[in-house]
Amino acid sequence: MKDIRFTYSHALNTHELQQYKEETQSALRTLTEGTGAGNDFIGWLSLPKDIRSQVSAIQKTADRLRNQCDIIVCVGIGGSYLGAKAVIDALLPSFAWLEDRKPQIVYAGNNIGEDYLYELQGLLRGKNFGIICISKSGTTTEPALAFRLLKIQLEEQAGKETARERIVCITDAKKGALRTLATQEGYDTFVIEDNIGGRFSVLSPVGLLPIACAGLDINALLDGAERVMDVCTTADFADNPALLYAASRNHLYRQGKKIELLVNYHPKLHYVSEWWKQLYGESEGKENKGIFPASVDFTTDLHSMGQYVQEGERHLFETVISVAEPNHKLVVPSDEANLDGLNFLAGKRVDEVNKMAELGTRLAHMDGGVPNLLIELPKLNEYALGELIAFFEVGCGVSGYMLGINPFNQPGVEAYKKNMFALLHKPGYEEATAAIEKRIQKQN
Amino acid sequence: MKDIRFTYSHALNTHELQQYKEETQSALRTLTEGTGAGNDFIGWLSLPKDIRSQVSAIQKTADRLRNQCDIIVCVGIGGSYLGAKAVIDALLPSFAWLEDRKPQIVYAGNNIGEDYLYELQGLLRGKNFGIICISKSGTTTEPALAFRLLKIQLEEQAGKETARERIVCITDAKKGALRTLATQEGYDTFVIEDNIGGRFSVLSPVGLLPIACAGLDINALLDGAERVMDVCTTADFADNPALLYAASRNHLYRQGKKIELLVNYHPKLHYVSEWWKQLYGESEGKENKGIFPASVDFTTDLHSMGQYVQEGERHLFETVISVAEPNHKLVVPSDEANLDGLNFLAGKRVDEVNKMAELGTRLAHMDGGVPNLLIELPKLNEYALGELIAFFEVGCGVSGYMLGINPFNQPGVEAYKKNMFALLHKPGYEEATAAIEKRIQKQN
Repeated sequence: MKDIRFTYSHALNTHELQQYKEETQSALRTLTEGTGAGNDFIGWLSLPKDIRSQVSAIQKTADRLRNQCDIIVCVGIGGSYLGAKAVIDALLPSFAWLEDRKPQIVYAGNNIGEDYLYELQGLLRGKNFGIICISKSGTTTEPALAFRLLKIQLEEQAGKETARERIVCITDAKKGALRTLATQEGYDTFVIEDNIGGRFSVLSPVGLLPIACAGLDINALLDGAERVMDVCTTADFADNPALLYAASRNHLYRQGKKIELLVNYHPKLHYVSEWWKQLYGESEGKENKGIFPASVDFTTDLHSMGQYVQEGERHLFETVISVAEPNHKLVVPSDEANLDGLNFLAGKRVDEVNKMAELGTRLAHMDGGVPNLLIELPKLNEYALGELIAFFEVGCGVSGYMLGINPFNQPGVEAYKKNMFALLHKPGYEEATAAIEKRIQKQN
Repeated sequence: MKDIRFTYSHALNTHELQQYKEETQSALRTLTEGTGAGNDFIGWLSLPKDIRSQVSAIQKTADRLRNQCDIIVCVGIGGSYLGAKAVIDALLPSFAWLEDRKPQIVYAGNNIGEDYLYELQGLLRGKNFGIICISKSGTTTEPALAFRLLKIQLEEQAGKETARERIVCITDAKKGALRTLATQEGYDTFVIEDNIGGRFSVLSPVGLLPIACAGLDINALLDGAERVMDVCTTADFADNPALLYAASRNHLYRQGKKIELLVNYHPKLHYVSEWWKQLYGESEGKENKGIFPASVDFTTDLHSMGQYVQEGERHLFETVISVAEPNHKLVVPSDEANLDGLNFLAGKRVDEVNKMAELGTRLAHMDGGVPNLLIELPKLNEYALGELIAFFEVGCGVSGYMLGINPFNQPGVEAYKKNMFALLHKPGYEEATAAIEKRIQKQN
């Protein structure tokens, strides 16, 4: 197996699938021709090609940061960190953070934890650290707050001149707080284009710079993405994995399967699922519609969520990410006493056991009434992850149009912010402040 | 606020709640009087008291391991690691793994990742490490496999005598592979009692030893648990948080809210949610029934799952864990230029911002049709976590009986194992092997 492969046959039959041919192809045309809702946010479709001209600048900046920093703090929330973390976690060693490794990549500005920020400041004290600040506007509360704190600390520890070399901003091309600051201070910058939303930005500098800082091959990532983006935007239904995926999951949803469980058998893929949850949840969860995206890491979570999946409410289906080959080789050793009874596995590779757990689980869950979609990757490397990203992105755009919503906006995320600003007496929110305080008083 | 507090008023009114008084009290009696299904697995009810006699032995073993080891590997899966990891992650510094800290706690035997085990072996090479192996039978595939590999490595690196001092087994009192091995080798052991299932074992040596190895106060954990276990098993409906929780969530489930989203605003609580997912998912997901347990870390995931929660399918409710006070103090600094517009927060504690995000989000989600249950903890410390654990455990037993299932078995987790063993040609599975191979052949 050289490329990503998608199998629907354990969830629906060919006849059921064929009913979606016209609908998915039409949704794909809407997407690629830019005639649908949210069509000003489809720049990601050509990103694997378009971004190539910036790769050497990104790599150069990454090399400088890698050279200067023991720790690089990626400041960003949602789409501004999930894609990078997904790729980095999938490809670095499992225990990278316990190794004597430079630079270590950590994340901030993705929560408002007082203890988190306090302890981060403690960690960074006396260390050579750098900051990649990722925010389109520069005013999103979480990253703005973290950046304000970390910028002061870096300037105090390293001096203003050195801090200038170790801060990189990824932000709007022209406007916004972070662009203004970067210009004033003379920071290196990269641009978040207007036609690429946060959750579709992993193949832009937003994802590529942190990924390159982790020492990974961003060209290979883009190669894989370019190849599958091409297949998924041009191939006919039967040969188009993104269309088959969109068809399958929408079919299952229409049958009452309201939860999609993204399953992996590789602990390193945990954050790929987190990235996927934003991609699909934020794209589809609208107008009281949309599949609820959830995830599990197997076999780990077979010992927690396995019972539910096997025998709980029958409102879910699984999408399994299977990786054909591990990157290392480890064989089960024989043991003379064999008290644990594992000698029947002796001489087998650990991954063979894992694969049989995977196959056995897929069959058991199907028997339990959980339809099963399968995504196979040849290997965990940059190229394959690029393929996976492109596959999920096109699948998401097509799925969203099939659902009849705009897959590229996120109107619902403003509601809590408005309340929060009102509660915090933000200037300009005076009316909202009065209203929300009255409401709370009434409840007490 | 001194103790855990539960609020239902943003999900149902007093009239609706009162309808569940008899039912929950009856379920509680079934639980505490041991007259219900699974009544041979309710030893956890008195565990906070019963285990006290073992605390000094547990602490002594922990002190020895802490003294001898740079890394302690906790080998176990499901209930054999989730409770310990939940408490340890909640109470250690956010970046403990990047600190020069001894011992570091890592986990194995909770997956079958070839790369994971290979890389773990690499990490441990040349290091002073110890192993806590947790398995009732000693033959569960994941931990047995990891332990087989790590035992060999430890004996090779440190010699058989030293390895003997650095391996501790937590297993059945008398029978099973791990008990036999421990007796033969002369390892220190602690007992998993027959009347305590894995997902209810965090307050037994299964959780307490790793937690003590991390340097945490297990007496305080038990104090908090004992106090709330007492309240939740004796107090009347109106004063019993576990009954109110069980009543509320079952009411919501019966109204069609099929997904419970456990929400925190503290990144350190991530694994408390993972522990909770096993507790509720494995207890309730039976007979095609049960609430689907999911979790999010806010505000982090407001920028991924927030859109769905606000505007997606209306089949979910939230249970928020709120922590009243952080452990450290950090104030938002002022900035002369104020480009990011955050000066309206200057002088406020970061946690105040977090709390307004929390309140603002709860209000916004309620407006969006997501009922909201609230659990308040005074602080993140051992005592409060003990309270939370006892609250969730009693709530789970009561909820399970209200649902009409046996909350203490897990019949569904055998299905995948049977297939896996058949596929791996385990001796004794010959018939199953023939059947499953025929089935797979047919499909291809």
